[in-house]
Amino acid sequence: MDFDAKLAQMAAENLKKLRENKPLIHNITNFVVMNYTANVLLAIGASPVMAHAQEEVEEMASIAGAVVLNIGTLTPDWIESMIKAGRKANRMNIPVILDPVGSGATTLRTESVRRLIKEISISVIRGNASEVLSIVRRGSGTKGVDSVHSVDDASGAALALAEELGMTLAITGEVDLITDGKRILRVHNGHPMMGRVTGTGCAATAVIGAFLAVDDDPVTASATALAYFGLAGEMGAKTCNGPGSFMIASLDGLYNIDEAALKEGAKIRI
Amino acid sequence: MDFDAKLAQMAAENLKKLRENKPLIHNITNFVVMNYTANVLLAIGASPVMAHAQEEVEEMASIAGAVVLNIGTLTPDWIESMIKAGRKANRMNIPVILDPVGSGATTLRTESVRRLIKEISISVIRGNASEVLSIVRRGSGTKGVDSVHSVDDASGAALALAEELGMTLAITGEVDLITDGKRILRVHNGHPMMGRVTGTGCAATAVIGAFLAVDDDPVTASATALAYFGLAGEMGAKTCNGPGSFMIASLDGLYNIDEAALKEGAKIRI
Amino acid sequence: MDFDAKLAQMAAENLKKLRENKPLIHNITNFVVMNYTANVLLAIGASPVMAHAQEEVEEMASIAGAVVLNIGTLTPDWIESMIKAGRKANRMNIPVILDPVGSGATTLRTESVRRLIKEISISVIRGNASEVLSIVRRGSGTKGVDSVHSVDDASGAALALAEELGMTLAITGEVDLITDGKRILRVHNGHPMMGRVTGTGCAATAVIGAFLAVDDDPVTASATALAYFGLAGEMGAKTCNGPGSFMIASLDGLYNIDEAALKEGAKIRI
Repeated sequence: MDFDAKLAQMAAENLKKLRENKPLIHNITNFVVMNYTANVLLAIGASPVMAHAQEEVEEMASIAGAVVLNIGTLTPDWIESMIKAGRKANRMNIPVILDPVGSGATTLRTESVRRLIKEISISVIRGNASEVLSIVRRGSGTKGVDSVHSVDDASGAALALAEELGMTLAITGEVDLITDGKRILRVHNGHPMMGRVTGTGCAATAVIGAFLAVDDDPVTASATALAYFGLAGEMGAKTCNGPGSFMIASLDGLYNIDEAALKEGAKIRI
Repeated sequence: MDFDAKLAQMAAENLKKLRENKPLIHNITNFVVMNYTANVLLAIGASPVMAHAQEEVEEMASIAGAVVLNIGTLTPDWIESMIKAGRKANRMNIPVILDPVGSGATTLRTESVRRLIKEISISVIRGNASEVLSIVRRGSGTKGVDSVHSVDDASGAALALAEELGMTLAITGEVDLITDGKRILRVHNGHPMMGRVTGTGCAATAVIGAFLAVDDDPVTASATALAYFGLAGEMGAKTCNGPGSFMIASLDGLYNIDEAALKEGAKIRI
Repeated sequence: MDFDAKLAQMAAENLKKLRENKPLIHNITNFVVMNYTANVLLAIGASPVMAHAQEEVEEMASIAGAVVLNIGTLTPDWIESMIKAGRKANRMNIPVILDPVGSGATTLRTESVRRLIKEISISVIRGNASEVLSIVRRGSGTKGVDSVHSVDDASGAALALAEELGMTLAITGEVDLITDGKRILRVHNGHPMMGRVTGTGCAATAVIGAFLAVDDDPVTASATALAYFGLAGEMGAKTCNGPGSFMIASLDGLYNIDEAALKEGAKIRI
């Protein structure tokens, strides 16, 4: 399979800019993945901060390069904080990215995602196929936080939804699909072991956030970030003995991948 | 020492069923262990979800194969969520398992455990000796979340308590003791290094939850789950350089142990 | 460079006492680092507990050897719990240590730190240079949770502040500076990779807490704890392939360093 050389080059350039700028990434995310997400962001060269108090989210968002919202362990008061942070980011033209963890599994999750989309201007939504489908379909179903649909199931709906909402959707799975309703990119990086470590999806979202801080185009920022994150997974899988050592080796991989390695290994198709 | 071949065989069968069914395990657990617990559940082949909002716990519990309640960083509102989730699970015949972390150390913990036991029908309580003793004795004392009693200290009280409450107690320590007030099983798997990694007890509870999703008998589900979890600890201890690498190697072990290895390695006695 | 042999000896003695006494360390800390902090405390030989409910913090603090307060993911109700726990600890002469994570980045953080300092008698504040400067200067600025100042920038202000408040300040960076306003100690242990793992600062604070439980002098307790923690980082850096394996190897290092190794490796200067 032939991959796009220009996009591979762009991935390397985004990584370079990220490591030069070390953008502050403000996360309002779930309890399960906070530690891992912070470690992923540090490994890639970004500067993570987690802050969720309504009293400080606007101030924190205003000094960030991107704001990452993730509903994995949501409660209504956290959603309020996300809206405050998101609106502040909108007013300051700071990109906002949303991870609709478990949307479709419960009414609270599905409704919260719809509300966030309505009240905030979001650059990118990154989710699995079931989560993204839940935005448009009642009763699409999500098994807890796991997808029951394939990326292909969701591609048609995603294209229409991205167009309608004017935002970019990044649906991750065996092959990732990124679309803004006009363009479609596919990323072939990654490894099945990523499904055996909690928070890989959430961390991928945070990495997209970091790339959005250095690349204005949500489609290329998402695709290049996912290629990088997936490549680290491929590297981790080479040396691991199971999901524990895979998680650690992938963190090392994110740190060790340089521009040349990313340019060489990125598998993005138009 | 001779171990029970039938129970070792049952452990292997439970593991097989678990990996075929990939049950969704709904955890309302503490902040310290959420990430590790989710990784343990993924490593064994289950599908973890953490959800604690009162607005969604009933819906999440209703699609789960088991509900795991853990009071490690409790506040009163989380206890309300546990009661909601537990009652919903009870109405739908979904097994509920409780981890009374630190019960005996503070009044809030001891009283919360007693309330949960009163308001929810619980299949299994998994704790250390001090935590289990705190259910029946005032002033039993727990050093934070660590036991000040041996499993043997608690065995008599546990037998009587299990009988009285009609539930199964799994007391973990050097040798684990599982009883429903009639039967007593002992599990000799495990390694002292498990006490040097936070959340091994909590993760063991979650693994019991996953086994309860495929084995109706709380006594055999608990014993086979603890044999499996302890065996992974034994494997981790063989290659580790300390508690950090032990944690990682044990996660790998949970993933790598297959039915044959579990049948071979399970050390359960009647 | 020559380091102080007496202080290296004291570090070894503190480690010995810590492992004999296994003090209970009560943490009210942030969600990002709870797991890692607990694992660090277990690795060094202490007994960690995390408890934040206003209903139990006084009871938990009263059985602890030290109370560690950390505002990394603060909300106003958690600050109330910190004040309750801190005051109870004060009444019982249990040392309290504060980690002002991100102070200077938002008003909520800066004001909360000032309030904690006012309402609780604190033995040691451990932070980076920007965080410590934020206590005395308006608009000192902190990039999320990362310092924008060097330890040298802050040393003058720290000396005056420690004197004024009658507490010990431990400012960590390439070289750590510890002062109570009269004495100044510097610790040369550590490794740059520590900045690539989230929570190393927070965990260092918890280790100081554990040393305060066995050493009445906040200055020597802080310096010896930081030497030990930094030495484990040096060991981790020797074998790691990146920040993931560094984190794991450092945990192993904390466990494996014995009195002789600490006496040999501690780099403390007066």
